[in-house]
Amino acid sequence: MRPSGRDLSDMRAVSIETGVTKHAEGSCMIRIGDTHVLCTATIEDRVPPFIKGSGLGWVTAEYGMLPRATNTRMRREAASGKQGGRTVEIQRLIGRALRAGVDRVALGERQITVDCDVIQADGGTRCASITGGWVALRLAVNKLMKAGDVLSDPLVDPVAAVSCGIYAGQPVLDLDYPEDSEAGVDGNFIMTGSGKLIEVQMSAEGSVFSRDQMGQLMDLAEKGVTELVAAQQAATA
Amino acid sequence: MRPSGRDLSDMRAVSIETGVTKHAEGSCMIRIGDTHVLCTATIEDRVPPFIKGSGLGWVTAEYGMLPRATNTRMRREAASGKQGGRTVEIQRLIGRALRAGVDRVALGERQITVDCDVIQADGGTRCASITGGWVALRLAVNKLMKAGDVLSDPLVDPVAAVSCGIYAGQPVLDLDYPEDSEAGVDGNFIMTGSGKLIEVQMSAEGSVFSRDQMGQLMDLAEKGVTELVAAQQAATA
Amino acid sequence: MRPSGRDLSDMRAVSIETGVTKHAEGSCMIRIGDTHVLCTATIEDRVPPFIKGSGLGWVTAEYGMLPRATNTRMRREAASGKQGGRTVEIQRLIGRALRAGVDRVALGERQITVDCDVIQADGGTRCASITGGWVALRLAVNKLMKAGDVLSDPLVDPVAAVSCGIYAGQPVLDLDYPEDSEAGVDGNFIMTGSGKLIEVQMSAEGSVFSRDQMGQLMDLAEKGVTELVAAQQAATA
Amino acid sequence: MRPSGRDLSDMRAVSIETGVTKHAEGSCMIRIGDTHVLCTATIEDRVPPFIKGSGLGWVTAEYGMLPRATNTRMRREAASGKQGGRTVEIQRLIGRALRAGVDRVALGERQITVDCDVIQADGGTRCASITGGWVALRLAVNKLMKAGDVLSDPLVDPVAAVSCGIYAGQPVLDLDYPEDSEAGVDGNFIMTGSGKLIEVQMSAEGSVFSRDQMGQLMDLAEKGVTELVAAQQAATA
Amino acid sequence: MRPSGRDLSDMRAVSIETGVTKHAEGSCMIRIGDTHVLCTATIEDRVPPFIKGSGLGWVTAEYGMLPRATNTRMRREAASGKQGGRTVEIQRLIGRALRAGVDRVALGERQITVDCDVIQADGGTRCASITGGWVALRLAVNKLMKAGDVLSDPLVDPVAAVSCGIYAGQPVLDLDYPEDSEAGVDGNFIMTGSGKLIEVQMSAEGSVFSRDQMGQLMDLAEKGVTELVAAQQAATA
Amino acid sequence: MRPSGRDLSDMRAVSIETGVTKHAEGSCMIRIGDTHVLCTATIEDRVPPFIKGSGLGWVTAEYGMLPRATNTRMRREAASGKQGGRTVEIQRLIGRALRAGVDRVALGERQITVDCDVIQADGGTRCASITGGWVALRLAVNKLMKAGDVLSDPLVDPVAAVSCGIYAGQPVLDLDYPEDSEAGVDGNFIMTGSGKLIEVQMSAEGSVFSRDQMGQLMDLAEKGVTELVAAQQAATA
Repeated sequence: MRPSGRDLSDMRAVSIETGVTKHAEGSCMIRIGDTHVLCTATIEDRVPPFIKGSGLGWVTAEYGMLPRATNTRMRREAASGKQGGRTVEIQRLIGRALRAGVDRVALGERQITVDCDVIQADGGTRCASITGGWVALRLAVNKLMKAGDVLSDPLVDPVAAVSCGIYAGQPVLDLDYPEDSEAGVDGNFIMTGSGKLIEVQMSAEGSVFSRDQMGQLMDLAEKGVTELVAAQQAATA
Repeated sequence: MRPSGRDLSDMRAVSIETGVTKHAEGSCMIRIGDTHVLCTATIEDRVPPFIKGSGLGWVTAEYGMLPRATNTRMRREAASGKQGGRTVEIQRLIGRALRAGVDRVALGERQITVDCDVIQADGGTRCASITGGWVALRLAVNKLMKAGDVLSDPLVDPVAAVSCGIYAGQPVLDLDYPEDSEAGVDGNFIMTGSGKLIEVQMSAEGSVFSRDQMGQLMDLAEKGVTELVAAQQAATA
Repeated sequence: MRPSGRDLSDMRAVSIETGVTKHAEGSCMIRIGDTHVLCTATIEDRVPPFIKGSGLGWVTAEYGMLPRATNTRMRREAASGKQGGRTVEIQRLIGRALRAGVDRVALGERQITVDCDVIQADGGTRCASITGGWVALRLAVNKLMKAGDVLSDPLVDPVAAVSCGIYAGQPVLDLDYPEDSEAGVDGNFIMTGSGKLIEVQMSAEGSVFSRDQMGQLMDLAEKGVTELVAAQQAATA
Repeated sequence: MRPSGRDLSDMRAVSIETGVTKHAEGSCMIRIGDTHVLCTATIEDRVPPFIKGSGLGWVTAEYGMLPRATNTRMRREAASGKQGGRTVEIQRLIGRALRAGVDRVALGERQITVDCDVIQADGGTRCASITGGWVALRLAVNKLMKAGDVLSDPLVDPVAAVSCGIYAGQPVLDLDYPEDSEAGVDGNFIMTGSGKLIEVQMSAEGSVFSRDQMGQLMDLAEKGVTELVAAQQAATA
Repeated sequence: MRPSGRDLSDMRAVSIETGVTKHAEGSCMIRIGDTHVLCTATIEDRVPPFIKGSGLGWVTAEYGMLPRATNTRMRREAASGKQGGRTVEIQRLIGRALRAGVDRVALGERQITVDCDVIQADGGTRCASITGGWVALRLAVNKLMKAGDVLSDPLVDPVAAVSCGIYAGQPVLDLDYPEDSEAGVDGNFIMTGSGKLIEVQMSAEGSVFSRDQMGQLMDLAEKGVTELVAAQQAATA
Repeated sequence: MRPSGRDLSDMRAVSIETGVTKHAEGSCMIRIGDTHVLCTATIEDRVPPFIKGSGLGWVTAEYGMLPRATNTRMRREAASGKQGGRTVEIQRLIGRALRAGVDRVALGERQITVDCDVIQADGGTRCASITGGWVALRLAVNKLMKAGDVLSDPLVDPVAAVSCGIYAGQPVLDLDYPEDSEAGVDGNFIMTGSGKLIEVQMSAEGSVFSRDQMGQLMDLAEKGVTELVAAQQAATA
């Protein structure tokens, strides 16, 4: 029934390749099916003005798409002179999600910026960015700990995200682009490795959904995030 | 326990005053406690390029805050040269929410723009905007129907929204600003008059939540939206 | 002869309602006929760089219009990415006008920002903004004086403004929108409560005027400003 | 008493050199003392959208200053990414002023853009721009008439402008920069060759003025404009 | 003598991997040492306005760098609201270079956009972009020819580019970042497969060079381009 | 054979008029045929952040064109909200070129900004800007030396620039606009008074060139720069 032939509760193939750029303090290429996102983490000593002198750290994120990551070429945001509403919304989401798993006291007064750049898109880029972004963050923090700059681990729980939706009347896990563009209801669940919720975003476009369906989607999300956290652990072990 | 002395499941006082500006096709001032939003609906014959010639209508929204709607003055977005990420995110949300209750075939090839301008803010401005925006939309559509420009009612189900969150460890309904700025978990539920979900956005900042808590918040949201829809019906009867 | 049936030297009905928002240090809604402007005054301890350390205070203003304040919806300036030339011109005018009535030594090194947001427009919004803006400023300064932060009153003379023009060949006072859009000559007189001039702006679009006509317009302006100052005094008594 | 030694009612030396660039349809360099403005007029067949098909013509203006036209270097507006409020205000004024002397039916459906670029500034650049801009416009219209593209002269009356102000308590004509920066009251009078008023802008910064003083300033302005119109006629004879 | 231990006339290792994204009509990842650039070619039926209806084709290019392609993170251009001067300069260069090898009549009225995105930078990114960009262009044109949309080959001669400079007093080929940041003289030679010049850009920063040195650099460039064209041929055979 | 009747190796008439504005520390109007550029040099005590405290000076440049410097009016860059790619490229080039002749230690920690504004354009504006810009710089530095602010001359060698190209198959010197718009190959040579190269930019648009032709163009450039340096010396003697 799904265009890809997957079962309703099947994720696409997941791979996480670390150490893909020589400059960044942490980096990975995450591939969820044909969605490929390059994630890098940059450590800087400065923090945003609103926490200067507080002793607390900060984690933030930026998101971008190469112009031809998609089926038809999109206009380059740098050329159009601003980041679109969708981009801003996504990068705020990634930052919030990653911060939920960070002990900012333990991190100390420094900032880690996670850049998520979509090299190839096939649905689910924001979830892939969060999941891969956490891996880049993990690797950068490992470097801080190895250097003795950070003493107790500020990453209290892994963070991963997966999309779910109602496609052709059925709840499905991890929508690819053909499903995403047809689904009346879809959204993202961001969770921790220990099964807690960080963010739930379910949205209907020209449709509505019931509380029962909401429950079924959460069941799927829990399954998906469990698999993603296992892949994160394998990649950073 | 709540700063306002309300019970956990109490809404603030709700009032909706219609016909507040002489130019707009539909308008209201919605007051949810000390949060006051002026909502106007404008009917135009043109539609966005991507549906031109399709026979379908469109509903969109814009959101703004007067600089001194808040406790300390915020920079005017027109002066800073762009709408901030928060503004863009909110107005996209309002538009999506209102469209979920519209039969776009029945509306016909025309656009209704709902402007939501916050005159005074005390938490929950996006929910007030959706709830009041639907009233302005209802009044504008009534005008189209009275004129015979639209034959069957395109507003298939009322749309309203309420915030919920976990404050001081307890699930609470309709957060005001003091609660909102302290809550570790909060979000918005957008629902129809018939109890269906349109959008769920729950988010933890520096915190996490369980699936049980998610259920308690949904119970509160259902109660709040029921009260808001009753106020919408009274205002537009 | 006038569309509204008013005599040549009649003002529209004037009302000034104070204390309309809970956050601002001073606020009012001024209504000149169907022109409604919300004016708020914000006190801040910082001053612009060019007077830092001088001991002098500063008064500045910003002006905006809600998109549907007018008969057809105007594009939101925040969305178009900049304030238009008309907006910039008006807010510079309001600031200059208000400063003319201020003893900046007595005010002390602080800034008061007066925001004038047009809720509904029917001609004469800049004059209403100045007249209402002075009321908001008065209330904010009263608060400073009551708190003992300012010792002698920095508001040396009330400031008010009225429009005049030549409509259908006759000099008329306080043009509404139907008159304003037809008048070949129109402009604004900004004066003090004691009858001194602060700013005169008379302009002909596709027309010219004589020095005699200029004198008749000044007579009307003096009458109008006298009535507006009385309304200011009543509102702030 | 004046820094330059001039009498209260003396203009600075005026010179208007025509034909200063080979590309423009009309051009001049106007020098009012040390204020030098290059004015060019460009004829185009297109008109702004709001008069398309009306048969009416349009005259518009743009204004700029070279970065080192002033005593200390100003930031280049092209580099700062926008025209400042002062620039926008001035170029709107120049356009309005020039249109007041134009019969737009006689001009026919075409646009003339007058560019006024300040090469060296010493006060009064907007008045010099209007006076010189009219000369460039006159020369461009002459070209249209010689070619038979326009049959009856659309320039019904010359347009010129001069500044006046109250300096050291005395009304003075044609303020230079040292006077302008000290004057408590100053402004501009735009008039026609036949002595009619087009625009009056008198403004007090930190000061006020009486109706009597207003009359004295108008006497001075009439004297100045008469001299400027004579210079325009000599340059375009 | 060179930091990398290379001989004066040695290129770094060159690899060109084709077909690296599933959406673009042509794509490759070019690696010149540690400089890695992802190049994609997009075919569109529209052309820029200035050649509409001419029957001629167009090739253009855009260039970007991921924020952490470099040793310290650079600000994302989309976030800063514009492409920097360096970016604009480079992408204009790439477009000009590629067009020099194209028969625009044979291409027919269509546009090919070549996007060059630097994934990792270590000097010479603009030369790598041109060399890899030509490969992406070649592959996209092959697709047009296979489909019969283009009949005779519009790519008349391969185009490749290499940097040269004077490092520690010696002319060297293909500068890496440590050399580039120290070289007093450096630049780029863009040439065709048949040894003709398309563009020469030699520039001294805080230094000068003689005509003899210019000749030595051209000898090196010819050697480098010959090797790059061989790599292009191997990748697209 | 050349539209102007000049021989292949003839420059246009060159004139350099100094002291053309009263405010700038150095200024000239350079005229190369019908290309007229106003160059001013401004001395400021501040330097860019990246050399603060280094004791080194900085020379930078900005470039602009009046809207009607060209045959058809171009949009004013200040009005379009940004400097185009061509402008940015040119002003970076002028700055680099001038710095190549400066001993930044001798200059001391101050910045000189050279503004080059094209009053009338007929080809070769960037070369005229460099040649005239050096004269303005020379005059400003003379002022510093006369005042004793700079002790040894920081201008170690004059800098001048000329364009060359292949027009109708022949190498020609100093292209005017009719030649420039037809030439298949053209570019700029920036050299010092002692015959050293600073920058070479040769570029083919829809064409290619040989190494022999490159040599012939360099011969022409040497002749042109020699004449320009003589004119610079005469103007600043």
